[in-house]
Amino acid sequence: MTILRIMEISGVSIAAISSVLIAGRKNLDLMGVMVIAIVTSVGGGTIRDLLLNRHPIFWVENPIFLYVIILSALLTLIYVRIWPPPQKLLLTGDGLSLAVFTIVGVQITEQAGHGGILAAMMGVVTGCAGGIIRDVMTNEIPLVMRGGRLYATAALVGATLYLGLQAAGMDSHIASGLGIVTVGGLRFAAIIWGIGLPLF
Amino acid sequence: MTILRIMEISGVSIAAISSVLIAGRKNLDLMGVMVIAIVTSVGGGTIRDLLLNRHPIFWVENPIFLYVIILSALLTLIYVRIWPPPQKLLLTGDGLSLAVFTIVGVQITEQAGHGGILAAMMGVVTGCAGGIIRDVMTNEIPLVMRGGRLYATAALVGATLYLGLQAAGMDSHIASGLGIVTVGGLRFAAIIWGIGLPLF
Amino acid sequence: MTILRIMEISGVSIAAISSVLIAGRKNLDLMGVMVIAIVTSVGGGTIRDLLLNRHPIFWVENPIFLYVIILSALLTLIYVRIWPPPQKLLLTGDGLSLAVFTIVGVQITEQAGHGGILAAMMGVVTGCAGGIIRDVMTNEIPLVMRGGRLYATAALVGATLYLGLQAAGMDSHIASGLGIVTVGGLRFAAIIWGIGLPLF
Repeated sequence: MTILRIMEISGVSIAAISSVLIAGRKNLDLMGVMVIAIVTSVGGGTIRDLLLNRHPIFWVENPIFLYVIILSALLTLIYVRIWPPPQKLLLTGDGLSLAVFTIVGVQITEQAGHGGILAAMMGVVTGCAGGIIRDVMTNEIPLVMRGGRLYATAALVGATLYLGLQAAGMDSHIASGLGIVTVGGLRFAAIIWGIGLPLF
Repeated sequence: MTILRIMEISGVSIAAISSVLIAGRKNLDLMGVMVIAIVTSVGGGTIRDLLLNRHPIFWVENPIFLYVIILSALLTLIYVRIWPPPQKLLLTGDGLSLAVFTIVGVQITEQAGHGGILAAMMGVVTGCAGGIIRDVMTNEIPLVMRGGRLYATAALVGATLYLGLQAAGMDSHIASGLGIVTVGGLRFAAIIWGIGLPLF
Repeated sequence: MTILRIMEISGVSIAAISSVLIAGRKNLDLMGVMVIAIVTSVGGGTIRDLLLNRHPIFWVENPIFLYVIILSALLTLIYVRIWPPPQKLLLTGDGLSLAVFTIVGVQITEQAGHGGILAAMMGVVTGCAGGIIRDVMTNEIPLVMRGGRLYATAALVGATLYLGLQAAGMDSHIASGLGIVTVGGLRFAAIIWGIGLPLF
């Protein structure tokens, strides 16, 4: 199993956990929670694979992703029945999956033979699109449309940094690590200190 | 013409009729009603075909689907101008198209060489996604996100039953009939007796 | 560079400009404005290419589209900081990109070997889908769902006229020009004189 695959599976699991914690506030039934968990976890990667004509789509090729999501979601549901929902884990998980998905998305786009602006954009799509679909399906305005906190911007900065460091000759694994830390760090800093781009 | 194709065309026609009855409450013009009818009727199958890389997409390969939808929608529009809209037909049609689309979706996924969790999931996607897109486009919270009544759950149970019966050696046609009856039956029972999964 | 390509790039640029003018009312940050500009400008063509299995998708094949969108959006943002937002340009731009995208969509579908109802429908999808995605992402009811003004209807009439004139033997360039004028003219007339189809 490659590092990329391990990152993908971890990202999907983390996204499922945090989406269940978010969904817990929305009066859904078990099926609704599972739909939210699956859509949030695979949405970004699915749109990336469709846009790049990369078939079979990652979770069609390897259904282990679906099992990981369902198991992660069920364990989270059991956990929050017994203990109070860990709000910090929610935000940490959401930021962490944004970071992992973004860099995974850039790397997969590079493997498909594209670089530069396309790779950066596909990183942002992979990182953000799952959450956008989730928000649209629950009739909320997506985070990226609300402004005031870095979200897609954090993904773009991290993706660009990763591409820049690699272009400057840095080892891909180290660059991807720094990219992930940058996306996650910017997102956490934005939440903690209320940092955001100015609104129009 | 295969039984699968007859089921597809019937499902599309029923979905168009019931979506026009639903759309009748939303202050749309003729074009808006047609867009709703098309999106609801082909949405689920289109997403399934995109995810499975099954090209040409069913209605691109055979535009008869579009003619069936437009004709069904127009006849329904004329009908409701003369007679009162049949509310029971609305719910019956919606449940019937959910049932037919779900089992058709499972069978097409099997034909594409996938089974198990993927086939069940594609059945649910084929059954539910058209209605989800319709609800998102009219700014309503999709049924599957509202809880309280079986909808995607009915589709999942019927799809799983169909797959299980087939795996147990039952003839595919009988199994698909039982699958359709199960999805539709669960959906109607859920509406009539207010059955649903518990909310979180 | 073919006339079709010039039309595509102009359409994308005009759509980016008018979507920034629309986005200016929504309290977005710079990233949100860029996401709206990109989604509105490439959304319709992307869905068309996915449905027709036309890969690489136009902006994946040629990232100049992304640069044109970002540049157009940035220049518009600078402009509206200095001068008051030109409301007439907003509506003109929106109608013009609807017209250009529609006819480009029909022509590309013809090139892919489809005609008739499919070509007309893909024209409407190319013309309208970007705006639909934008409206869904900002939690507004899409124009085509609001009725009262010609929008998708204008696209459908123009697309049908273009196909009919070509079938009648008219030169493709003249027919596409007349198609664009028809879509834009109907849209502008609908706005100025409040023309629309009757509501149900």
